[in-house]
Amino acid sequence: MSHGTGRPSSALLTDKYELTMVQAALRSGAAQRRTVFELFARRLPDGRRYGVVAGTGRFLEQLRDFRFGEEELGFLADHDVVDAATIDWLADFSFRGSIHGYAEGEVYFPHSPLLTVEATFAEAVVLETLALSTLNFDTAIASAASRMTAAAGGRPCIDMGSRRTHEQAAVAAARAAVIAGFTATSNLEAGRRYGLPTVGTAAHAFTLLHDTEPDAFRAQVDSLGTDTTLLLDTYDVPTALRTAVDVAGHELAGVRLDSGDLLAQAHEVRAELNALGATETGITVTSDLDEFAIAALAAAPVDAYGVGTRLVTGSGAPTASLVYKLVRRTDDAGQWHNVAKRSAGSKSSIGGRKRAYRILDEGGAAAEELIVVGDGQEPPEEQRYRRLQIPLVVDGEVVPEHIGSQGVAAAAERHAAARAELPAEALRLQRGEAAIPTRFAGA
Amino acid sequence: MSHGTGRPSSALLTDKYELTMVQAALRSGAAQRRTVFELFARRLPDGRRYGVVAGTGRFLEQLRDFRFGEEELGFLADHDVVDAATIDWLADFSFRGSIHGYAEGEVYFPHSPLLTVEATFAEAVVLETLALSTLNFDTAIASAASRMTAAAGGRPCIDMGSRRTHEQAAVAAARAAVIAGFTATSNLEAGRRYGLPTVGTAAHAFTLLHDTEPDAFRAQVDSLGTDTTLLLDTYDVPTALRTAVDVAGHELAGVRLDSGDLLAQAHEVRAELNALGATETGITVTSDLDEFAIAALAAAPVDAYGVGTRLVTGSGAPTASLVYKLVRRTDDAGQWHNVAKRSAGSKSSIGGRKRAYRILDEGGAAAEELIVVGDGQEPPEEQRYRRLQIPLVVDGEVVPEHIGSQGVAAAAERHAAARAELPAEALRLQRGEAAIPTRFAGA
Repeated sequence: MSHGTGRPSSALLTDKYELTMVQAALRSGAAQRRTVFELFARRLPDGRRYGVVAGTGRFLEQLRDFRFGEEELGFLADHDVVDAATIDWLADFSFRGSIHGYAEGEVYFPHSPLLTVEATFAEAVVLETLALSTLNFDTAIASAASRMTAAAGGRPCIDMGSRRTHEQAAVAAARAAVIAGFTATSNLEAGRRYGLPTVGTAAHAFTLLHDTEPDAFRAQVDSLGTDTTLLLDTYDVPTALRTAVDVAGHELAGVRLDSGDLLAQAHEVRAELNALGATETGITVTSDLDEFAIAALAAAPVDAYGVGTRLVTGSGAPTASLVYKLVRRTDDAGQWHNVAKRSAGSKSSIGGRKRAYRILDEGGAAAEELIVVGDGQEPPEEQRYRRLQIPLVVDGEVVPEHIGSQGVAAAAERHAAARAELPAEALRLQRGEAAIPTRFAGA
Repeated sequence: MSHGTGRPSSALLTDKYELTMVQAALRSGAAQRRTVFELFARRLPDGRRYGVVAGTGRFLEQLRDFRFGEEELGFLADHDVVDAATIDWLADFSFRGSIHGYAEGEVYFPHSPLLTVEATFAEAVVLETLALSTLNFDTAIASAASRMTAAAGGRPCIDMGSRRTHEQAAVAAARAAVIAGFTATSNLEAGRRYGLPTVGTAAHAFTLLHDTEPDAFRAQVDSLGTDTTLLLDTYDVPTALRTAVDVAGHELAGVRLDSGDLLAQAHEVRAELNALGATETGITVTSDLDEFAIAALAAAPVDAYGVGTRLVTGSGAPTASLVYKLVRRTDDAGQWHNVAKRSAGSKSSIGGRKRAYRILDEGGAAAEELIVVGDGQEPPEEQRYRRLQIPLVVDGEVVPEHIGSQGVAAAAERHAAARAELPAEALRLQRGEAAIPTRFAGA
């Protein structure tokens, strides 16, 4: 499953109908029509006030590997997925169109055009599934993660969710979490692939493995030094705490609580650590946290939050519900037409290519998401605004700085800035409406 | 990231603390203690009556590739993840222990020991994250999928959820869905990797691409033949329906509805198809379905269900909450000890190696999940029962028939049989308790 680069092909991570549409469009001649597809969300996850764009870098990384090699073509031919003319077209495929979009870390709202893909129909439609899979998952995680880091204030949040989601999704989740302000991950592959800081010390099994808890703590400190975190809740927390300080001394970097009433325990453990002179020893809590539990611990003496299940499952919104829609195309004469599904219901869309601007008030706070359709005017010059779409792929060439492993630190900075720009109520955890309104112009 | 087999290594899909525990245990000497780890769920997903085991085959596939090659070791050394002695140990690592477990497709209940890993501590603990990631995701999907196929009765369910989850998770989700009774997937890589049937025809974009809906339908039928499915809800369903039959004739295999009131539309479309003589043309519905929506369409003239978002997100339970716990270990004298976390709260576990039996009543229906701890007795001879644990890895050798791409059809058959064995109320969609009680013996 490679295509001469040594990297696996991403081309079959695709719904069959993308390829049968290519086949039928090659036959009808419409495959070569120029098109504009847009990727957007009709709504934010239930009750959320903003979303966070993530996955674009991973999509671009996989776009380079979206090639149909011998193995992929052999599968398609052997299983009659598409006809011989389509196989020939796919064999020569490499994306030569252009893609603009929101940068990773940027916040978004309903109908924000997160990606705008301009290419022939055949070239644009085959990217649909991969683009949606990548952005839907990563954006869901980043959107949840941002609420957690906001709730945590300045305290570090650490991704410990790998075991609760698909093993490759776990790597992407770590990346999305860091974009949204998490400081580190437990996932080693995420560390290797994306250069993220990794953390981890020991589990209950390590304590249970040894004959006694003091044996276990001594074994850990002997090997990992006092710059480690001892897990207190295998047997009895107060006993474990005294053992920990006895074994590691006041230099002990941290202790961890992974069960029970974290609020009460944090206060008790802090008081006891202080009483024992271990005033610099930090407390990490890690049991079933989400943004609400983190917020509830704001007044507790907690130094770091380890977040697992609720992070990697999007804290109730495991997908961002992004869609990828044809909004504009040429006809046989080369004339452009705006197009949109018109059938009744909530799934209708707005035809025409969109440009997006974050309108800022005089103080620099976000006031409005302006989406200009077609030939509509840019915001007036006296208006403060940011242009939200940047070039990601130009005539088939991916802009290197946005590729997966390159952009994480920049995306994290961008997210912090974009979130800080939002009105204060955007960070409320209660269910609510989008933090700023979206306005269409020129539609 | 390969290790001489041409396949990528899975070894870094692992939480850092697994490796720091190995380091500390190598130093303390406890790394070589013999251990038993068990993988189980403390509870079923909220309100569910049974769960469905999946992911074991994918775990075993990746276990073969769980080797630390030069690239992985270089990362660990360069980032001081573990010390030199641990790097040496990891360089030589290949799993030489044994694993028993529930076969894929089997149903399970709280505390069912889905995997039992017997090996030295170091060998068993490094597998924790990969085992949990793989089984937690796949089991969540299969558990949701089984409720959908049960609700669908004999009507086919088709996985169309790839775009709503991580691109590799999508492939695993397709496999888990088919184990739980889905008949096909839209995902081509799942077709290639696991030999699953793939389906797909066209999206709204294909209709919008053409100048008129009749042009689009003709293009599709010209290329794909009448054994295709025409999508009716781009503009106006009744008009599209007449166009579809006009273009494709009575031979048209199917039509698809992807928005609006599916119940009302299915009746209208069926009546109109019949009136036009297209009595054999099937109706596929595909808009935001879950097990409840499928059940609500039971009396509607629907021929197939395409399920997306709710399938790949576990229909409200995106992870199976499986855990991996040390339950037994030797001491320095080689004596075995049962061990368990004892700290207060819901996270305590039951020490000792477990054996599991599905106790059947005289009619062959499942009556009880019997979990025998330690030296407890097997069920009496006169009792009808099935032994639930089978050998998956024997002294480091993976049993080939259970590897990812091999076992899907057998697992699907196994699931159908295991589900049929459950009491009828197990298939109720309303929230409820586990369909059969779990009883511990010998604890």
